[in-house]
This record gives sequence, C-alpha cells and structure tokens, in this order.
Amino acid sequence: MPRVFSGIQPTGDPHIGNYFGAMRNYVRLGEEYGKNSIYCVVDLHAITNPAAYDPKTLAQRTFEMAVANFAAGLDPEKVVFFVQSQVPEHQELSWVFTALTPVGELERMTQYKDKAEQLESIPAGLLMYPVLMAADILLYKADTVPVGEDQTQHIELTRALARKFNHAYGETFPEPKAVYARDALRIPGVDGQGKMSKSKGESSTIGILEPLDSIWQKLRVAPTDPARVRRSDPGDPDKCLIGDYHKLFSDLPTIETVYEGCRTAGIGCVDCKKMLMQGITRELTPLQERAEGLRANPDWVRDALATGARQAREIARPVMEEVREKAGFLKL
Amino acid sequence: MPRVFSGIQPTGDPHIGNYFGAMRNYVRLGEEYGKNSIYCVVDLHAITNPAAYDPKTLAQRTFEMAVANFAAGLDPEKVVFFVQSQVPEHQELSWVFTALTPVGELERMTQYKDKAEQLESIPAGLLMYPVLMAADILLYKADTVPVGEDQTQHIELTRALARKFNHAYGETFPEPKAVYARDALRIPGVDGQGKMSKSKGESSTIGILEPLDSIWQKLRVAPTDPARVRRSDPGDPDKCLIGDYHKLFSDLPTIETVYEGCRTAGIGCVDCKKMLMQGITRELTPLQERAEGLRANPDWVRDALATGARQAREIARPVMEEVREKAGFLKL
Repeated sequence: MPRVFSGIQPTGDPHIGNYFGAMRNYVRLGEEYGKNSIYCVVDLHAITNPAAYDPKTLAQRTFEMAVANFAAGLDPEKVVFFVQSQVPEHQELSWVFTALTPVGELERMTQYKDKAEQLESIPAGLLMYPVLMAADILLYKADTVPVGEDQTQHIELTRALARKFNHAYGETFPEPKAVYARDALRIPGVDGQGKMSKSKGESSTIGILEPLDSIWQKLRVAPTDPARVRRSDPGDPDKCLIGDYHKLFSDLPTIETVYEGCRTAGIGCVDCKKMLMQGITRELTPLQERAEGLRANPDWVRDALATGARQAREIARPVMEEVREKAGFLKL
Repeated sequence: MPRVFSGIQPTGDPHIGNYFGAMRNYVRLGEEYGKNSIYCVVDLHAITNPAAYDPKTLAQRTFEMAVANFAAGLDPEKVVFFVQSQVPEHQELSWVFTALTPVGELERMTQYKDKAEQLESIPAGLLMYPVLMAADILLYKADTVPVGEDQTQHIELTRALARKFNHAYGETFPEPKAVYARDALRIPGVDGQGKMSKSKGESSTIGILEPLDSIWQKLRVAPTDPARVRRSDPGDPDKCLIGDYHKLFSDLPTIETVYEGCRTAGIGCVDCKKMLMQGITRELTPLQERAEGLRANPDWVRDALATGARQAREIARPVMEEVREKAGFLKL
C-alpha cells in the first residue's frame, strides 16, 4: 500500500485553486489509503518566507487552514492530519539531511533563485526549505507526494537524499514519486492576470471560505473573452476564465447552455456569471456552513489536530530511532 | 546568577589541551554555578564535518567523551551534562533561527570558509553549523559561553540572532558573552608542529585517557629547544614544549629545577622528560582509573546522561514554548 504525504501552506483561506488542485485530492486519497495518507499544515515552512510570514497571524491562519480542510471533507478519523510544528521529528531529520546536502545543490534550486532575487537579504530558511521538505516526506517513508509541478526539483532533491542516506547508512528510505494534481495549474485568477495565486493578493483569488457576496463582487468585474465587446458579439468560452470556472462548479447541462449561449451571443456575460454563481453557491455553501460549525467548536478542531500529531509521531518516532542509530547518535 | 553553556565535541579521547583549556574549566564553573552550568556533547555538530565524522564510531566517541568528563571531575549531580541529540529542542530552535539568519552572514564565517576550501562538495551542515550553535546557547538563555578564540565570530552571530529575535518578537534572549579559556590556546602539540589539535592526528596530541607508556613514547621523541644540540649546550625552556608541559603538570620546585637545569645544561632533555612524565602520571593516573571504573559501569554513565537530558529539557521546554508562541505556532 502506498503512503501519501503532502504539506499544506497555512495561508488561512485557501482558494478554489487549492481546493480543486489539492484539498479535494486529499479527501479522495484519504478514502483510498486511510491512515496511509498523511497531511500536514507546514507552519515551519511558512516562517522561511519573510514576504508572506507574519507571526501575529500565523497561528490563526494555521487554525483556519485546518478548518477549511475539515470543512472540505477531510476526515481526521480516516487520515492523519496535523500541524508540522507539533512533530519535532521534522526538524530532527531535517538536520541529519542538512549534513548530507551539498550547498551547491540548494543554491541551484529554481524556486530559491526566484525568491532570493526579490530580496535584499536572503534568509537561510529559504535556502534550507527543500531540505526540511525532504524530511517532511521521508520521515513517514512516504512514496507518493501530491504536489504542483513547481515542486518537481524539490522532489528530485528528496529522492537524491533518500539515495544518499541509504548509500551511506544502509537501506532506509523509499524514493518518493511526485503525483501532479491535474486541475490545479490551469485555474486562472479572477483578475485575469494569469494563474490564481495567493501571492498575487486577494484580487486574484476566490477563497473557499470567502463570503459569497464578496465572491460575486469579484466575478461581476472579472474580465471575459475580450473579443466580446458588445452583447451581440459571439464569444469563445474556452478563452474566458468564467468558462473555465463553469467547468469546475457547474453541472453538464449548465456548461452546455452557457458555452452554446456564449458562442452564439445567446446569453450575455452577466447572465453567464450569474449561472456560475449558482454553481459556486451550491458547492461552497455547505462547506462554509461546516466551517462555521467548526469555528464555533474550536476544541474539536484542536483535539483533532492533537490526535493527528500523536498519530504522526507514532509513525515518525521509529523512523527517527532508526535514523539516530544509523547516524551514530548514542542510545541511552 | 550567570548561566554558562558550553558544547563539547565528541572526539572520544580528549587531549591535554581540551583538559586544561575546557574540561577543568567546566568542573570549576560547575562548583561555582551548579545547575546553571550546562554542558553538552555536541554530536549533532559532529555530523556536519564529513572529514571527521564516522557514523560507526560516533556513539562510542560520545560515550567516551562523557566518561572522560566524569573522570576529570565533572559531577553530574552538580551540573547539567548531556548529549545534544537527546534534546530535540536544539534543532527546533535552530530552524526558527535559520529563518532569521541571512545566508550572506553564514558564507562570511571564517571557519566555514576555511573548511569549505578543503572540500569538493560543501555540505549545508557546515554552513548552518553556527545557527545550531546559536540555538544551543540561547535555548538555555545562557549568557556566558566558555569557548576558544576561534569561536568569536560564531558568538557574535549568536548575539546578533538574540537581538534580531528580540527585535522581531519581543524581548526573549540575553546576548551571551564569550569567555576565553586562558591556557588552551598556548598548548603546543607534542610533535612540535604548532598547536595541539585533534585534527592534526594522534601524533600531535597527548590524550588524557591515553596509556601512559604511549604518552612516554611520544615524549621520548618530542623535539626540544633546537639550540640545545649537545647535552652540554644550555637550553631555553621557554622555547621548549617540554618546558610548557612542565608548567601544566609539575609542581613549582620541579619546574624551578628543570628550568634552571636546562638553562645551565645541568640536566639533559631525557631527564627533563622523565620528570615531566612523573607529573603527568600523578595527574592522569587517578583520572584514568576513574575512567576504567566508569567503563565497567556503563549503565551509570547512561543514567547520568539521561538525567542530564531530562534536566536540560526542563530548562529548554519553557523557552521553546515561549519561542513557539511568539513565532506564531498554533498551540493545541
């Protein structure tokens, strides 16, 4: 049975890109692999990016990200779901890997170079990020890692570290494989400025916990196919972000209606957006109601996370014991 | 009351430079500051130097280093003495500091540059070494750090990290001061090739647990004042490593006898070395007997180290709790 690991950035309110690209995937994999699906909110990674990290809001965002995942259907009874900083074995293994990773390989990471370019002073956390990520995955001897394609290089480093450790200390870790989420990468931002991304700010995203009227305000002004200048001009729904969103939220008859209506100028963009809003409302309302229920019962959320951390440590501890012995740490 | 922290490399058999420069200092500070003197065998640092690290012998060396310190008079009832890898809070705090440390500052560390120069591939552990060292010290809010002068830059970084953390998250850490051991730096290697150092190999060192006949074989062939070519030539004991060793091991009348004898060619170098050997025997015999006793009772050593780790964690845990809360890690 494969073991799945994935890390979730504590961005607070995840957007529909996260939802369709990752969160629903977690729920599905959880149904399939049960307690062999391990998900963690990576607050230790969050502190490495000074542009995005605020110590005053991190705990709240971490909590909200847990709420969002539970609301989206992740069942803490079925999977292992926890907060990274609750399992210190992540940093312990990370240090062992730090000793095995050449500085040069870390400096060559594309994501590091991109982020470092934008900073006056580069924190070492940015450089060491992929080492902690390798520890996250291998701590559970996970072999399957659902990630975005931007993580390919980091997964390669993880595989290289597994090989290196196995070679130096004896067979210990599997070489994990990346599994790319199909939908995530193609979801455009609601501002029409390329991919939906938290890092571009709220104007780009539709949050799954965002109030519906706020979502509507964004949709209302969202750009559509620029060829459709007048109501009477036919449009191409495949060149329209609203068309893309319909594929995520609307049922097949609705999609057929709006695609046909757009191509023939049978419906206007506002009508099309209203029909999309119906689908969004249908999808997000129960999720947002569950989130409200969870926020009203924070102890349940905390208990679920504490249980998840205990379960994670039960898997992590014997692995760390094995690593400690192989690396030559004195056993008392 | 000041709080003292010092890390001890698990080199196995410490040499007389370590003994006079550090270990006796620990005993003395332990008498003065009791449980506010915290010493740890830094096995997590040992793995960062591929030239010196061997996973097959690390546990044994760590154990032997504990034995040597206990044999030298360190009383685990009086001080806090433990093995670094037993207290995972070191790595936890290290990761938080990693996020605060500019890569450029780490690249500028002289010791890093020196070590990196000798390697084809530089492990990230060498680069991150001073960050872990800062965590070692600040985890106990230590303000006094007995170190060699080669650590000055690392202590400066520790102070900078304390300031940076305090500035970003509120007053938390003291700015620790280095306290330099007086004698350690001046002890020459028995091979006459500069400072006594483990890294130069066994021919340079006199181990405090080394068999006395092995020590004598080294002394016998040790170079003396080169001006003393013939037995009848007067020498200058201040230019002779045997003269330096007499100051460490011999009593005042002996020192006066051999210094006078050397300057007047009244005694030969072999006589002088024999008198030194008497002092060494007097100093090291009881120590080596205690070490034998400890090796015959490894459970006592392990228990003492386990107790030390527990005491260390009792100090470390509330500090980490404070750090976690200030950094924004969700509390469950």
